[in-house]
Amino acid sequence: MNNPPLNPVQVLEQLHWRYATKKFAPDKKIPEAIWKTLEQSLVLAPSSFGLQPWQFFVIRNPEIRQKLLEPAWGQKPVVEASHLVVFANKQNVNEQDVNRYIQRMAEVQQAPPENFAGFADMVKGYLKEPPYPLEPNKWAAKQTYIALGFFMTCAAMMGIDTLPMEGFMPAQYDEILDLSSKGYSAVVLCAAGYRANDDKNADKPKIRYPSTEVVQYID
Amino acid sequence: MNNPPLNPVQVLEQLHWRYATKKFAPDKKIPEAIWKTLEQSLVLAPSSFGLQPWQFFVIRNPEIRQKLLEPAWGQKPVVEASHLVVFANKQNVNEQDVNRYIQRMAEVQQAPPENFAGFADMVKGYLKEPPYPLEPNKWAAKQTYIALGFFMTCAAMMGIDTLPMEGFMPAQYDEILDLSSKGYSAVVLCAAGYRANDDKNADKPKIRYPSTEVVQYID
Repeated sequence: MNNPPLNPVQVLEQLHWRYATKKFAPDKKIPEAIWKTLEQSLVLAPSSFGLQPWQFFVIRNPEIRQKLLEPAWGQKPVVEASHLVVFANKQNVNEQDVNRYIQRMAEVQQAPPENFAGFADMVKGYLKEPPYPLEPNKWAAKQTYIALGFFMTCAAMMGIDTLPMEGFMPAQYDEILDLSSKGYSAVVLCAAGYRANDDKNADKPKIRYPSTEVVQYID
Repeated sequence: MNNPPLNPVQVLEQLHWRYATKKFAPDKKIPEAIWKTLEQSLVLAPSSFGLQPWQFFVIRNPEIRQKLLEPAWGQKPVVEASHLVVFANKQNVNEQDVNRYIQRMAEVQQAPPENFAGFADMVKGYLKEPPYPLEPNKWAAKQTYIALGFFMTCAAMMGIDTLPMEGFMPAQYDEILDLSSKGYSAVVLCAAGYRANDDKNADKPKIRYPSTEVVQYID
């Protein structure tokens, strides 16, 4: 590592700086160096067993973004923000997904796949007979929200505004982006870019419950 | 803001530095200034409609941490990491939760609650007749995973190691921590602290699919 970790004051300042941006400056684009790090915040996000049951669709085609507007109740950031990311998760995660991951492990660690047989059996056993009720699609969706958290936090750290959106019709997004045929389904959106000068939300105080109500110390 | 945002190289370095720490140094504690920022990463995390359907339990009592070990399949970070956070989400989010949030809005913005009646109706309508199938507990759990993402990313930025854990019995955690009576249920754990010098995982390469397989550009 070339740089020391960041100091907590800086991190806290960026967390306070962040807010749900409702109006983006349509002409301000995220520079490539910053975008590449945001892309990697998605690629490097952690997931249960490391399975990465997700894909992230970055919509650059303006006509397609226009098509995605109406099924998101006309929320303007869908078309106005510098970048729009559709977070999709793998449907029906199963043994094949585990096998694919084992192949990748073998490739990265330059070892035969047999070396990971114990791990493979463990994950397959978990999917087949989970120790508690498990719905694969809901479980994959939760993992995808970790990636959303990574993306938004890294954006905030670099001074990039974001707006996460659940208000859209997943079925229509799946159709427009042809996700179902690939085995994926849209679960959440995130617009990223720069706040417009006149976004009224920017100066509103954050509405949060007091720390003492949400963080409980068990001593 | 006193400091400029962080540069993307620093952020990327910290993302690469992060890994799922399996062995923590039991004697190394997170300094208070850093912990306070981590606490705020939970408090300031965004959630759908801003409802914050969560509570975060930081287990400091060593005897209780010991009790939480076995229902987490003996994963040592439960007792050895500097901090253990149990992420819990509100069960059966309903109109009362919306009312509570409106009260808080009124308090923070120093305005009468009536000012937010339109917003309140909209959220209540969403909960009563969601535009797509919605299970309140699964939905709240996803929000809580955003907070997990914020927590882990901020930790990585500050050089703090973490381990997220889904491998535990939620029902037993709820009982030990008396969460059900409070209307909450444990959904995921995160240990935080410092990697042990001999954690074998530290030097292993990350297993990630190539960027081109997980991030798709729609041009």
